[in-house]
Amino acid sequence: MPKFPNFAKRVDEITGSVFEKYAPKMAEQAENLVKLHIGDTYLPPKYTLPIDSSFYEKHENFNQYCNTFGIAPLREALVEKLQTDNQLRLDKENVLITNGATNALSISMMALIEPDDEVLILTPAWPFFFGMVKIAGGRIVEAPIYTKLHNEPELDIADYLEKFMTTRTVAIYLNTPNNPSGKMLNREQLEQIAAVAEKHNLWVISDEAYDGLTFDNRPHLSIAGFPNMFERTLSIFTFSKSFMFAGLRLGFVAASDQAVKNLNKMMVHQLYSPSTFAQQMMVEPVKTRKQWLPGVLNHYRELRDLFVEKLKIDFPKPEATYFIFFSADKYLNGRDYWQLIEACLDSGVSVAPGDSFGKDFHHYIRLCFTGESPQRLEIGIERLNKVFGC
Amino acid sequence: MPKFPNFAKRVDEITGSVFEKYAPKMAEQAENLVKLHIGDTYLPPKYTLPIDSSFYEKHENFNQYCNTFGIAPLREALVEKLQTDNQLRLDKENVLITNGATNALSISMMALIEPDDEVLILTPAWPFFFGMVKIAGGRIVEAPIYTKLHNEPELDIADYLEKFMTTRTVAIYLNTPNNPSGKMLNREQLEQIAAVAEKHNLWVISDEAYDGLTFDNRPHLSIAGFPNMFERTLSIFTFSKSFMFAGLRLGFVAASDQAVKNLNKMMVHQLYSPSTFAQQMMVEPVKTRKQWLPGVLNHYRELRDLFVEKLKIDFPKPEATYFIFFSADKYLNGRDYWQLIEACLDSGVSVAPGDSFGKDFHHYIRLCFTGESPQRLEIGIERLNKVFGC
Repeated sequence: MPKFPNFAKRVDEITGSVFEKYAPKMAEQAENLVKLHIGDTYLPPKYTLPIDSSFYEKHENFNQYCNTFGIAPLREALVEKLQTDNQLRLDKENVLITNGATNALSISMMALIEPDDEVLILTPAWPFFFGMVKIAGGRIVEAPIYTKLHNEPELDIADYLEKFMTTRTVAIYLNTPNNPSGKMLNREQLEQIAAVAEKHNLWVISDEAYDGLTFDNRPHLSIAGFPNMFERTLSIFTFSKSFMFAGLRLGFVAASDQAVKNLNKMMVHQLYSPSTFAQQMMVEPVKTRKQWLPGVLNHYRELRDLFVEKLKIDFPKPEATYFIFFSADKYLNGRDYWQLIEACLDSGVSVAPGDSFGKDFHHYIRLCFTGESPQRLEIGIERLNKVFGC
Repeated sequence: MPKFPNFAKRVDEITGSVFEKYAPKMAEQAENLVKLHIGDTYLPPKYTLPIDSSFYEKHENFNQYCNTFGIAPLREALVEKLQTDNQLRLDKENVLITNGATNALSISMMALIEPDDEVLILTPAWPFFFGMVKIAGGRIVEAPIYTKLHNEPELDIADYLEKFMTTRTVAIYLNTPNNPSGKMLNREQLEQIAAVAEKHNLWVISDEAYDGLTFDNRPHLSIAGFPNMFERTLSIFTFSKSFMFAGLRLGFVAASDQAVKNLNKMMVHQLYSPSTFAQQMMVEPVKTRKQWLPGVLNHYRELRDLFVEKLKIDFPKPEATYFIFFSADKYLNGRDYWQLIEACLDSGVSVAPGDSFGKDFHHYIRLCFTGESPQRLEIGIERLNKVFGC
């Protein structure tokens, strides 16, 4: 039962890289060192690649293995981003590059959770996280909260979460901005969660995949920046959402030195390292984010407002993310829930069923409002209005 | 204790993609379907990327999520490759694209191995595989074989492996061409291993990362192509070695339909899918491999021969891979093994210590002969000759 600051036993059972202990000696030798220890090629690929020649020249090692913690220029750019945008005080050693937020969440569970440990998941929550807890051997405890906050904005979260706690509770999983509800937690709400984590000595898995995708000037807050929270928190980010590149599979974790080392141990046994080439491509976009992100965000807000204006279904206006999440209960009209989902499909619109987001969301539906062009979205809205009888 | 054809329990405890059951209905709708079910963006990234515009035009979805089994054009190209080069009879549904061979091996263990199951590892073996078995809860049994075959080429492998078998043995891990020894198994040797697998009803994990990197016209053989072996074998390949792009993190598995589905279930919980963009880049190189690979191979052979000619240490001439593996016993000259490794480093050459490749290789050393330019390799060889007193 590893509570903070302890890790799961499997972390100690696994050895890290065999070269780690020689890293200082290798660094000392620098350019003089003839590297015969790693299996790689000194040549670039001998086939045509669709990459600018200027990139090749700047990144001659783009096809080779990299430091499994991530390449230094990207870790450094992310330190600046996390300090500036997320108010985290941290260093390069506190950043681990991962294969998307998915991979970061997976290795978090493997590094923290042992059989029968309980993970408190604030729901609705991203479907694959439930499976990750199970694969690590953990037990899932679900606390519905984000949709609840729509109706009870003054809910005392600390008090509410207390009833889900047991002696086996090891970690709490939160996700703000929240997929699927589009809800954001404010400072007071996060302070209440922080208090619970401190009181029960929990690890905090802070899934911030939608960092940066907030509307109406709502500030995204990172719980790791709150007093006494950095050491117990794994803050998880991705290049899939605000960086618009889900197809790249790149993400990162901000955490304590020790947590970064232990997560890396699990990661090298899942996939060795993230892509060298993908990391090199993302250094500039991180540095220039203030130039291109506001335009994207403004357009996404317009798409949200298109749904708010034209979709006649009742749903809470999303504060962030690119999702709308609502109960379909009053639109069943004699159909059962799955018949409604199929009716959507038959009309030519695919929607995400709510029950994969937690046991309390059987009759909910999630819509993404950025995955299709505005013209196609309008067609989708019209079809949905018809299916739902609005 | 899941022996072939059974999988580990965790596979059934985890749900797959929520959209899987609607796949046929979605396919029916084709272009008409307005997709609001997945969280993604319809826009390309709004920052500069070092990618040719012709690639963008051909692959407008390069930045989006893809089918988690892999993109169809790459799976199709690999079917042709596996049929032609590896004599496997298989279809697109038998190919799963993964995040490198590392990821393929990791999900294999998660899908097959339960606590206390034994995995027979033919050694010397790739270091991280040991940790993967442990993470899945399995027990490691090591059977030293590749170096043994140098001295005993007529070894009866079926008979030899028998003494490592218990009722708990669930899988056998082989790796030909072998990292680190550079040894290849021939048809007769593979037939003996196949017989053992059939007799004891074992899964076979066939790590073929060095597929294609063989010298002196030695044919690489895939055990899955042998009679009755396809269904019980997971054949694992990578783009890191013969495709020269370790920095891309892409690999693939050839296996039965059911194995592919179950491996994918584990994979989506580790990293969702491999990179869309990386997969799109690799379609052409697979199709053109007969044009560019022979030149690479010829150059690697020259580098091997450079070591054979100039490195005065005793080592078996590698038949394949890009490694030399030898016992350092007779070169200690009063030093202990780790002092010798440090002496290499102090002279400006990094080498890989043998004990990470299995418990029987404490005094071995692995050298890679393709990771540096020929000029730098010559410097490395000179330094090693001095350190080893040759």
